[in-house]
Amino acid sequence: MLDAEKTKKETAREQRIFRHGGNIYAPSPTGKWLDFSANINPMGMADEVADTIRAHIVDLVHYPEPNAVRLRQAIGKACGIPMEAVLPGNGASDLLYLLFEMIRPAHVLLPIPTFSEYERAALAARSRVRYFGLLPDMGFRPDMGKLLGACPATNVLVLCNPNNPTGVLLHREAVEMLAMAMKGRDQWLVVDESFLDFRADGTRESVLPLVMRYPHLLVLRSMTKFYALPGLRLGFLAAHPDTVRRLRRGRDIWAVNTLAQEAGITALGLPDYAEKSRALVKREGAFLHEAMERMGIGSLAPTVNFLLLDLHKTGCTAADLAERLRAHGILIRDCSNYPGLDAYYARIAVRTQKENQTLVQAMEEAIQC
Amino acid sequence: MLDAEKTKKETAREQRIFRHGGNIYAPSPTGKWLDFSANINPMGMADEVADTIRAHIVDLVHYPEPNAVRLRQAIGKACGIPMEAVLPGNGASDLLYLLFEMIRPAHVLLPIPTFSEYERAALAARSRVRYFGLLPDMGFRPDMGKLLGACPATNVLVLCNPNNPTGVLLHREAVEMLAMAMKGRDQWLVVDESFLDFRADGTRESVLPLVMRYPHLLVLRSMTKFYALPGLRLGFLAAHPDTVRRLRRGRDIWAVNTLAQEAGITALGLPDYAEKSRALVKREGAFLHEAMERMGIGSLAPTVNFLLLDLHKTGCTAADLAERLRAHGILIRDCSNYPGLDAYYARIAVRTQKENQTLVQAMEEAIQC
Repeated sequence: MLDAEKTKKETAREQRIFRHGGNIYAPSPTGKWLDFSANINPMGMADEVADTIRAHIVDLVHYPEPNAVRLRQAIGKACGIPMEAVLPGNGASDLLYLLFEMIRPAHVLLPIPTFSEYERAALAARSRVRYFGLLPDMGFRPDMGKLLGACPATNVLVLCNPNNPTGVLLHREAVEMLAMAMKGRDQWLVVDESFLDFRADGTRESVLPLVMRYPHLLVLRSMTKFYALPGLRLGFLAAHPDTVRRLRRGRDIWAVNTLAQEAGITALGLPDYAEKSRALVKREGAFLHEAMERMGIGSLAPTVNFLLLDLHKTGCTAADLAERLRAHGILIRDCSNYPGLDAYYARIAVRTQKENQTLVQAMEEAIQC
Repeated sequence: MLDAEKTKKETAREQRIFRHGGNIYAPSPTGKWLDFSANINPMGMADEVADTIRAHIVDLVHYPEPNAVRLRQAIGKACGIPMEAVLPGNGASDLLYLLFEMIRPAHVLLPIPTFSEYERAALAARSRVRYFGLLPDMGFRPDMGKLLGACPATNVLVLCNPNNPTGVLLHREAVEMLAMAMKGRDQWLVVDESFLDFRADGTRESVLPLVMRYPHLLVLRSMTKFYALPGLRLGFLAAHPDTVRRLRRGRDIWAVNTLAQEAGITALGLPDYAEKSRALVKREGAFLHEAMERMGIGSLAPTVNFLLLDLHKTGCTAADLAERLRAHGILIRDCSNYPGLDAYYARIAVRTQKENQTLVQAMEEAIQC
């Protein structure tokens, strides 16, 4: 049966920690929000993808292709895995809820700070969540020995790589070591690689091809961040075909809408767009990192398309900074509600040169208040 | 943990009973399928809806509005319930999986024959499913006394109204009687009204407004059948606001894509389209019913946009008939895999006059073989 109504205190905590970025649907003082709170490819949607979506509106009178064969083939080819190891979903988040529902783990271990949906999805599946603290003094890098030591007591370990919101990247060898250590223990290692596409070495660092070797390894991938399609919902899970078959039972067969299937197929065939996006994000990430240092704002060197900002030295809280930037029509992510972070952390996405300059100017003004 | 691998026999049964209508994605002998296997509004998508979708492609670079406020307001207004009682989803089927996952009922009762996703979703939530047989001799109408008698042993009763594939409609009073009988017993009554929009008296027969009075009543509605948008995915669940709040925890907040939200809002503002659709379906349903009788094919008088065909007297199985019609580029639904039906049942959707005439001609030929 449904859980009994939670206490008001618990509900308040939920509402606080599961709140996401700025709401672009609220009215903006400048008429339109400049959104640095969502980590979307600053190149925007490729024209070819928009054309594909437009061309397939007429097909919406039919159900989506239930096996998503062409999409799974395209993903499999791009990732070097058989299509039987690919489970597309209504966004990566939906697959996260699916895997928790189907596994129903008693205990889940989350290195924090990290993306809050892991905890929300685990709680929906009535799992107990334990945190593994990542420390600012260590640049939020996990102590691998301690992490390995904490694993035996858990059924699922979720690793976001690179981690949102810190940007810390674990190399493939480190992740594979975890996979090896957890093998044969009735444990699952979930690796969320939703931002890895933003790196030129993304293929080398990915554990995607390892799913055929480690049947307890599940890899999540968003396709909406890199291809700038979050409104359409598209992601996939890669796992051993036996696991994919069992997980599929937990969703209706029409979960991925027709436009998302077609957009995904088109997007995967655009190497130029991918390359340009990575170059843009690298160049502009470096620009923002430098500008932040100049302002006395701490930030780790960006690995992908966002930066975690440490505002301690400025004396300005993330809430204050976000509030002041809102007056300029700019949204940033106040990270004070992330378990593992305090009131002085914020996250900004990497956007285009002009937009980043606008942000830096507005921040220089805002930070002095 | 995930279920142990099911036996081959079980998997084979699953693959058989959970197979749906004809696959329009397979090659057609005539170049294009005429699809009578899916129960979609024959009017097709309204131009206004297609225009809305086209206009919002540019917004896909943002996440969907997480609270779907405008869509929930539009649904609430159309149904006479507060928006807090409305939970939109990625199709009605997705909400079905959600409710079973969150309720985790030990026992589920299904009057059969009925839509197979109820059983599939219940099994995914590890529920035990019991059937309540609806008899052809009684026109597949439930004996309400016996159904009431079977209720105490169940945690969830799923009622499809009108029922797919039989088309049998229970009046609102009968459904409310069930709701009353199940009140206060830690039981849930799920009423799937996904086809009720096709009836002129749909508002009168709906139990939607009762969700505020019966906290254990959940009403499901597809919006993709009546508005001809199955490829886009859109449905909603109506329930007491407390239940909606708890169910929402089981899905990520971006589950309904932006185009579906906008299409739904536009669709609900088209009374002419709705009225014309109902008139078309009524007229053409009567035409098909008469034509079937003429061919010696049994069919109940249609209540909505499909007819269950009883082929016993023709000596032709549904599989044979479907095979012969496929040669004409026509798809119908072979219902032999529905628990509760045998090899001589098929279902056809009501389509446009010209399409229905094409079907009748092809069937007259096919049935004589």
